[in-house]
Amino acid sequence: MTTPRTSLGVSRRILLSSLALLPALIGPMRPISALAQTPATDPLPSWNETATKNSIVTFVERVTKQGSPDLVPPAERIATFDNDGTLWAEQPIYFQAAFALDRVMALAPLHPEWKDKEPFASLLKGDLKGALAGGEAAIFEIVTVTHSGMTTVEFEKIVRDWISTAKHPVTGRLYTEMVYQPMLELLAYMRANGFKTFIVSGGGIDFMRVFAEQIYGVPPEQVVGSSGKLSFELRGGRPILMKLPELNFNDDKTGKPIGIQMHIGRQPIAAFGNSDGDLQMLEWAKGGGGARFALLVHHTDAEREWAYDRNSSIGRLDKAVDAARAMGWTVVNMKNDWKKIFPFGSK
Amino acid sequence: MTTPRTSLGVSRRILLSSLALLPALIGPMRPISALAQTPATDPLPSWNETATKNSIVTFVERVTKQGSPDLVPPAERIATFDNDGTLWAEQPIYFQAAFALDRVMALAPLHPEWKDKEPFASLLKGDLKGALAGGEAAIFEIVTVTHSGMTTVEFEKIVRDWISTAKHPVTGRLYTEMVYQPMLELLAYMRANGFKTFIVSGGGIDFMRVFAEQIYGVPPEQVVGSSGKLSFELRGGRPILMKLPELNFNDDKTGKPIGIQMHIGRQPIAAFGNSDGDLQMLEWAKGGGGARFALLVHHTDAEREWAYDRNSSIGRLDKAVDAARAMGWTVVNMKNDWKKIFPFGSK
Repeated sequence: MTTPRTSLGVSRRILLSSLALLPALIGPMRPISALAQTPATDPLPSWNETATKNSIVTFVERVTKQGSPDLVPPAERIATFDNDGTLWAEQPIYFQAAFALDRVMALAPLHPEWKDKEPFASLLKGDLKGALAGGEAAIFEIVTVTHSGMTTVEFEKIVRDWISTAKHPVTGRLYTEMVYQPMLELLAYMRANGFKTFIVSGGGIDFMRVFAEQIYGVPPEQVVGSSGKLSFELRGGRPILMKLPELNFNDDKTGKPIGIQMHIGRQPIAAFGNSDGDLQMLEWAKGGGGARFALLVHHTDAEREWAYDRNSSIGRLDKAVDAARAMGWTVVNMKNDWKKIFPFGSK
Repeated sequence: MTTPRTSLGVSRRILLSSLALLPALIGPMRPISALAQTPATDPLPSWNETATKNSIVTFVERVTKQGSPDLVPPAERIATFDNDGTLWAEQPIYFQAAFALDRVMALAPLHPEWKDKEPFASLLKGDLKGALAGGEAAIFEIVTVTHSGMTTVEFEKIVRDWISTAKHPVTGRLYTEMVYQPMLELLAYMRANGFKTFIVSGGGIDFMRVFAEQIYGVPPEQVVGSSGKLSFELRGGRPILMKLPELNFNDDKTGKPIGIQMHIGRQPIAAFGNSDGDLQMLEWAKGGGGARFALLVHHTDAEREWAYDRNSSIGRLDKAVDAARAMGWTVVNMKNDWKKIFPFGSK
């Protein structure tokens, strides 16, 4: 199947309100003021020497250097990262949506009745826009057939098979290659400084856990995401967890600080996002005492990646960038701040 | 306030079904067969040299020794521990229930109307049985007024103040002293062998996190428990999380493997419990491939601790001990297997 490229034309909130199939962004430019000092071995080689990089390094040194008045004990060095649009790309559609659409195609032979049943009939004809005309109910149906009705172990295998073979429609790369090299360096840099790094994403928790350890170095127990309900059953005497067609938790917007409290139980001292869905997580991270850090990735590079912000249906960045400017949070201007986009280069 | 000592007379299920105020255990005796070899420095000095200790050490060596056919990579060495009756005592009532009752007494001056309103009227007269005559609704009211209506930060302070001063009604010790010395050694032993130790308890997640790191060495992000819903709000521009009077998740029985999947995302290879509420967690841990370990603490020592099992309303151990015998799981006979009960000695 080729992923349909029709514009989604559906708001982010609606999409996420079922099983968080989908979660991008850009904002106004920021002047470069090259201030960062490059140490002997630069842990952030894909970051240009701009004020952005300097703000990261300055914060990390403030909370980790012995003798600093803002020193934070290692146990409290919690950093939370959004995934879609922050750690990996999210255009032209959220990668988990591409997974769901591919799964519909893969399952179609088992469902001859889909030929006459929406939203599947439209999907099978490659008409994504038509399929989504059914609104939330249509999305819920797509999520249901692709994300429930199997055990957690079966789902993990399905995702593993997909993620190791499916190709991005624009670059032809594996989705796991569509990760931001500067953010990989940032994750490693923070861990090297005693931070525990968590993913906190509107994406599905069971979906992300399949690859988060391999591509980000974040183990399953440090992934927070949206989830469906589960049931515990014995099947032939063996215990299984069935994935049910019912939303358990929507880890987006106000759900992010709530998900952080539920899973981590500590207020992060640093948070990284890229869209309005991350606003409350950044507010929460900045809300505690002592030194705090909040960063937004602004997608400003149409040539090497994508450029979008206030008017995008994917990863809309509108209120959050206004808040960032008002509050003095760090905003990455991808075009100016990042030397390299993906490990393989650019789009 | 003196904690009322009236027998609860309410089933565990009902109590837990609201906010998991409360979550114990004993079974038939087990013959001692002293097999364990004591290394130069015994990491489990409070365990007698019985088959129980031997089963623990044998398992840990199987999954950790280089060259063992059952070697498990460190990232997959997940061990989950119930709390009430497994890591600390739970008699004469669950400690979190004692907290709730103390809080009702502390809040009473602010609620003159409670004098004429059940279940508070009975509680204020020290009549716990009368208060609980109202069943689930009464318990829900007690949980609601003591565990919601404040921010997560405010609740943490309330618990911290209580746990650092409240005394156990029988021993006169701090509740944080009522922990099992052999289990503290076991937690440390497993961590020293590369295990990540988690608490998975029917108790309240926000309650346990206040002291779990200090007394068990388990950080907040490795505590899984029952929870109430939260809401994210800005109060005077500052972000807060309000604890709402609504159950979010009941981490007991089938809820335990579900809570494990939600929070950890990996099947544990070892699980430790003491009551029927832990049965599904132990089944889940034993359900995967390779070497697996399941252990039940059986409260058999009426003199040094308490003795109870099939007929106890607190920590009932009935079906789980039958399962343990049928499946060959390890059952701790507290009287025979433990040299020492609490760090300070015995009851």
